[in-house]
Amino acid sequence: MNEHIAPALPDWQVSRWFNTEGPLRLADLRGRVVLIHAFQMLCPGCVAHGLPQAARVHQRFGGEGVAVVGLHCVFEHHEAMGPQALQAFIHEYRLRFPIGVDGPSPDGPVPRTMAQWRLQGTPSTLLLDRQGRLRLHHFGALDELHLGVAIGRLLAQPPADRSDVNASTADVAACADGACTIGR
Amino acid sequence: MNEHIAPALPDWQVSRWFNTEGPLRLADLRGRVVLIHAFQMLCPGCVAHGLPQAARVHQRFGGEGVAVVGLHCVFEHHEAMGPQALQAFIHEYRLRFPIGVDGPSPDGPVPRTMAQWRLQGTPSTLLLDRQGRLRLHHFGALDELHLGVAIGRLLAQPPADRSDVNASTADVAACADGACTIGR
Amino acid sequence: MNEHIAPALPDWQVSRWFNTEGPLRLADLRGRVVLIHAFQMLCPGCVAHGLPQAARVHQRFGGEGVAVVGLHCVFEHHEAMGPQALQAFIHEYRLRFPIGVDGPSPDGPVPRTMAQWRLQGTPSTLLLDRQGRLRLHHFGALDELHLGVAIGRLLAQPPADRSDVNASTADVAACADGACTIGR
Amino acid sequence: MNEHIAPALPDWQVSRWFNTEGPLRLADLRGRVVLIHAFQMLCPGCVAHGLPQAARVHQRFGGEGVAVVGLHCVFEHHEAMGPQALQAFIHEYRLRFPIGVDGPSPDGPVPRTMAQWRLQGTPSTLLLDRQGRLRLHHFGALDELHLGVAIGRLLAQPPADRSDVNASTADVAACADGACTIGR
Repeated sequence: MNEHIAPALPDWQVSRWFNTEGPLRLADLRGRVVLIHAFQMLCPGCVAHGLPQAARVHQRFGGEGVAVVGLHCVFEHHEAMGPQALQAFIHEYRLRFPIGVDGPSPDGPVPRTMAQWRLQGTPSTLLLDRQGRLRLHHFGALDELHLGVAIGRLLAQPPADRSDVNASTADVAACADGACTIGR
Repeated sequence: MNEHIAPALPDWQVSRWFNTEGPLRLADLRGRVVLIHAFQMLCPGCVAHGLPQAARVHQRFGGEGVAVVGLHCVFEHHEAMGPQALQAFIHEYRLRFPIGVDGPSPDGPVPRTMAQWRLQGTPSTLLLDRQGRLRLHHFGALDELHLGVAIGRLLAQPPADRSDVNASTADVAACADGACTIGR
Repeated sequence: MNEHIAPALPDWQVSRWFNTEGPLRLADLRGRVVLIHAFQMLCPGCVAHGLPQAARVHQRFGGEGVAVVGLHCVFEHHEAMGPQALQAFIHEYRLRFPIGVDGPSPDGPVPRTMAQWRLQGTPSTLLLDRQGRLRLHHFGALDELHLGVAIGRLLAQPPADRSDVNASTADVAACADGACTIGR
Repeated sequence: MNEHIAPALPDWQVSRWFNTEGPLRLADLRGRVVLIHAFQMLCPGCVAHGLPQAARVHQRFGGEGVAVVGLHCVFEHHEAMGPQALQAFIHEYRLRFPIGVDGPSPDGPVPRTMAQWRLQGTPSTLLLDRQGRLRLHHFGALDELHLGVAIGRLLAQPPADRSDVNASTADVAACADGACTIGR
């Protein structure tokens, strides 16, 4: 009876990958803490804050059990942020972590994953526990100390142990303001 | 058979307290994660980095189970950093967390606690787990993300549960360089 | 007999303008101090340092006799930095000063003005005096204090007075390192 | 008939000097642009902004005709900021430019020069032209670009030429907000 535990976040729908050898699924990352950074290459807050922060987490904690993935969620200026432009951007900004292009939607400008996950905009940061459940969801610049504490809490949970998740779920919402939410 | 677990850090030897109602002992903080910031009021790195960082941790995580304590470890310019000068400094820099004056030593310029804990200098940051054991010891400016992750790991440990401490001891040394050590 | 005074910088060759009512010529700015910021929209140093600095100069000294002009000198990733992408970039980064697209060259990837002025790369900052002569040319991030002093020196020269230019020419090279040169 | 030109700023009244070979008078600096930084060693804004800025001006433009002088204007916490404490502070913060202790007043806590010059508090920055006249007076953090432009304008004035001072007096008030004033 774990009715307070959210199910795993549904998978992204990515049309193209960079910095990977092949398509990546969320399920492939089970057992690791996952940081997803949703961005647009022409979004000033992403370039100034979000992407450098994701790169720092990747560089320092990538070997400690944290997987960092970028998701290019283009919902405006589509003509200026196609895959070719993104490739140049990734090259110029020396981004090393896997980056997926959120699949275009037939229904409007907002791409598929962004719509399904109900992201408010870019930059958005999502943090998943080792079981793939959403534990932190923040829109805007995310305080570095808060992000660190949230990552630390999730890293402390043993990969296969589901017994103590309930107890600490509430703790993870250690986030700066109302923009932080715990996974449903 | 817990021979790998360090004993609790021996208590500080403080000659005067600021921002407290009375003397504070390390044992009083058992059950909480403890951040100790050893500083000198005329140490540029303390003023620019260490004290503002300690203040951020106090402000954001003081209510989440983290106790922040400053320790004024004067080992040079004693005449310029007496308690009266420190009081003016605390007032001007709006420091709100408890601050103790490390007791002068009869043997030399290095004060008692600084000598006993073998601090290398200021700023030094120490992080204790809920059982009072030293888990991180860093000399110099401490990366905010690393500090956050280390705090988050310790916060995730249940206050009274000693059973899983061994398992995660190694994890806490998530620190930038050789200056970080795990409690003996 | 002013043989030490450089002639005015030859005009740019711009294929398209943004944030202007029509084409802009260097000669139109005679009488004002001119700051030209040569950039590429996917150049990290331009986005982080150069463009915000140019925007500050425009905002604070645009009304004091300093004209700020951006020049989009695309010499790599041409397909990702066309005029349409630049337009989105200008919109997202809220750039308000005139920006011209350096005209493509039939001879290679380096655009016309960039080649003629022998720019080393982006970001490059050029400062012209009220007579249109190059007085400072810096490649890379430019120290804010040095830029301010150089602008102040040029602003102090009366618009129509050519007599004291020789005397103060040497003064303008108040620049951080070897990357600064005085107009020939 | 130069009635709009302020007289030279009256000299400071300093009780002790650091970083000089002997007492320094304002008249000794005639012919140079002079930056005076009024500070207190326990003033956070001075430590974080004002003193590092003064040090940058000293380092980069000390050889170009700008004299930088610190003035320790203690008007509070006198017991914590005596000359011995200041000496330790100067040593720890590696300050290299001349620093004078504003002479205590028999009439109250505000020292003599601070009262005579009507400084509002610390940090305060004063800029004098080559004739010793006050041209910029700013209380609070001073924008680096504005300071640079103001210095550049004054450097551009020839040392002995008094004829064009009137014309450019108004130009020097290139300061961020109402806190900037031109010398009366």
